[in-house]
Amino acid sequence: MSLTREQLAQQIVDAGRFLYGRGWSPATSSNYSTRLSPSEALLTVSGKHKGQLGLDDVLATDLSGNSLEPGKKPSAETLLHTQLYSWRPEIGAVLHTHSVNATVLSRLTPQDFIEFEDYELQKAFSGISTHESRVRVPIFDNDQDIARLAAKVQPWLDAHPDCVGYLIRGHGLYTWGAQMSDALRQIEAFEFLFECELKTRSVMNRQG
Amino acid sequence: MSLTREQLAQQIVDAGRFLYGRGWSPATSSNYSTRLSPSEALLTVSGKHKGQLGLDDVLATDLSGNSLEPGKKPSAETLLHTQLYSWRPEIGAVLHTHSVNATVLSRLTPQDFIEFEDYELQKAFSGISTHESRVRVPIFDNDQDIARLAAKVQPWLDAHPDCVGYLIRGHGLYTWGAQMSDALRQIEAFEFLFECELKTRSVMNRQG
Amino acid sequence: MSLTREQLAQQIVDAGRFLYGRGWSPATSSNYSTRLSPSEALLTVSGKHKGQLGLDDVLATDLSGNSLEPGKKPSAETLLHTQLYSWRPEIGAVLHTHSVNATVLSRLTPQDFIEFEDYELQKAFSGISTHESRVRVPIFDNDQDIARLAAKVQPWLDAHPDCVGYLIRGHGLYTWGAQMSDALRQIEAFEFLFECELKTRSVMNRQG
Amino acid sequence: MSLTREQLAQQIVDAGRFLYGRGWSPATSSNYSTRLSPSEALLTVSGKHKGQLGLDDVLATDLSGNSLEPGKKPSAETLLHTQLYSWRPEIGAVLHTHSVNATVLSRLTPQDFIEFEDYELQKAFSGISTHESRVRVPIFDNDQDIARLAAKVQPWLDAHPDCVGYLIRGHGLYTWGAQMSDALRQIEAFEFLFECELKTRSVMNRQG
Repeated sequence: MSLTREQLAQQIVDAGRFLYGRGWSPATSSNYSTRLSPSEALLTVSGKHKGQLGLDDVLATDLSGNSLEPGKKPSAETLLHTQLYSWRPEIGAVLHTHSVNATVLSRLTPQDFIEFEDYELQKAFSGISTHESRVRVPIFDNDQDIARLAAKVQPWLDAHPDCVGYLIRGHGLYTWGAQMSDALRQIEAFEFLFECELKTRSVMNRQG
Repeated sequence: MSLTREQLAQQIVDAGRFLYGRGWSPATSSNYSTRLSPSEALLTVSGKHKGQLGLDDVLATDLSGNSLEPGKKPSAETLLHTQLYSWRPEIGAVLHTHSVNATVLSRLTPQDFIEFEDYELQKAFSGISTHESRVRVPIFDNDQDIARLAAKVQPWLDAHPDCVGYLIRGHGLYTWGAQMSDALRQIEAFEFLFECELKTRSVMNRQG
Repeated sequence: MSLTREQLAQQIVDAGRFLYGRGWSPATSSNYSTRLSPSEALLTVSGKHKGQLGLDDVLATDLSGNSLEPGKKPSAETLLHTQLYSWRPEIGAVLHTHSVNATVLSRLTPQDFIEFEDYELQKAFSGISTHESRVRVPIFDNDQDIARLAAKVQPWLDAHPDCVGYLIRGHGLYTWGAQMSDALRQIEAFEFLFECELKTRSVMNRQG
Repeated sequence: MSLTREQLAQQIVDAGRFLYGRGWSPATSSNYSTRLSPSEALLTVSGKHKGQLGLDDVLATDLSGNSLEPGKKPSAETLLHTQLYSWRPEIGAVLHTHSVNATVLSRLTPQDFIEFEDYELQKAFSGISTHESRVRVPIFDNDQDIARLAAKVQPWLDAHPDCVGYLIRGHGLYTWGAQMSDALRQIEAFEFLFECELKTRSVMNRQG
């Protein structure tokens, strides 16, 4: 199942069209990547309309987040992608999105995590087979210094090898999968749970 | 009106495209079926993207939920479909969906049912001709043991031959019809009523 | 601007595709009409999927609501359409829709009307040129006896020649226009105002 | 990057199709413009369906808002567009939209501004590079006398050269950009923030 660079780029283009269409990547926000080789990632360049990506709007980086293509500027958040490829070798795709619900929930919640329980849809996450599990999603405070932010994320990843995604407060979601289709399934599952949680809080008038 | 297996499979494929498009079958959730013969059902296989089903993503089962096609894995919830075909011979299609509103409402409601009254749209359900009727929708607690769950549903079906659908808490909706178009009409009616109810509770700040 | 029957039927088919697509005519609900002649209306037949109407899914009636086409069953609510054509000769199209917001608002509101004020979009209604006007929309209780319901609507129409639409509680909206495009513009304006009002009440937690 | 009149008209047509499709320009509301030359603007004519604009549905005006094309009626709000082209020479496109969320938020807020802070998406506005900035959006009371309204907007613009948009209460949003794509990106960013703010207030039950 070794895909060519063009096939991987096409997966990113298609993911962008889907995620923009759902309203989860508005106003040139978001960035997406796939693993290009054991030591390289293929990542969206900075500042593009995510519903109108072309095959040329990606660039290769090493796993420290350095561009391997002079002249193309990687997203400021590259390191948050490559950190995940280094963390677990089976990850093949990483998606970072900016939905309204992820943004609102992460800002409303005073705790540094949200926990989902008793939702059948938790089973859509890799490695989870029953609604009786608990899915804990950590929330990290936003930071324009991405190296500093990555350094806060790393200990959490190390301590939770079963982590399926995390939130940056007021900013968005990171999730991933063995293949792009797995990462997209997890995005759908997260967005479903975020919407459930926010509608519940709207009826109950509670923040967290 | 005897349809071929291919026509019935196409109905399932089309239903999936519609239901996924509406957001009611996210993240590979949901399963759908039609009656293939008096003693057989045609049902979606496990774990597929419901907006991208192919004609091959269905399999035949007997009405005890056993696969009749070695090599294809039926959905874990097959028994909840075949139970309905056994219950009433005029049922020709069963749809199980996972919408946000069905999930949130069933979790919020402390009672073991939701009741709809004074909605004109209740008339969209088979056998109901006035908004002055009451439509009671039972809510069963979720259970990964499907045989045990089916055993809880059965007495309710037996006691309510006019039942038009039921909810599983934190999980989703089951509804049905003589033909696929009837089941789809009931899905639309249920989702309409769920959205009405949830918006009402959001204004009133009440759980049930 | 005298359109043929086929052109008028096509307007109804197109309106249905649009209104169903917006979620305002779910589950075979709603009915639409145009004026066919000074003394005849062209109206949707009963019980069809409104996003999939064909040119044959309409029938001619006189202005007392009697079918002029034996074998085709007019909608139960025909009289509410023909009443409007009799009331004002300049009306050329009538739309009756069943949105979630119209349903919820009309059920929540204890008064027998909703009033809109200080919305720029009020100017989308025929005859209104400033947001400083007040648009009062009466709410009639639902009734399966359509002749009785029409008899309650008539005095209100007679007393308010500038009326732009009305609600039936738990049921839906009636609005109209000189041409189909005017009626569609008014539907959009009403649905906009209903959504505004419901979102406002959700923040303020008030029913009316 | 000097575009022809036809190319600029096409940008307006395309913007209309997009903005109507998102529900931000319902019921013939809204108006859009581009700069045609240092001293001329190209603007939508009055009263058209914004999802169905043709290349002919625009007209040229001078920067005082006077039509340069006898026989075509400019939008009543032309002066609010041309005022912006006079204010800053680098502005190339102005969009005025009427979304539900802009309308509801501007009506709910008792203050004469809304302020956004700690949202990553603030970076989508021209000139803003961190979520730690504050984006203040003034709210002006609606007025059918556009010259009088423009006279209230002008001092605010003069005092805030970094202004990225403003609201008219119960009416809608004005925003702009060097090119049409910039103005569209800012619309998306504003609508994202409005939706976030309104969902937050719905959970917290607060008006401003």
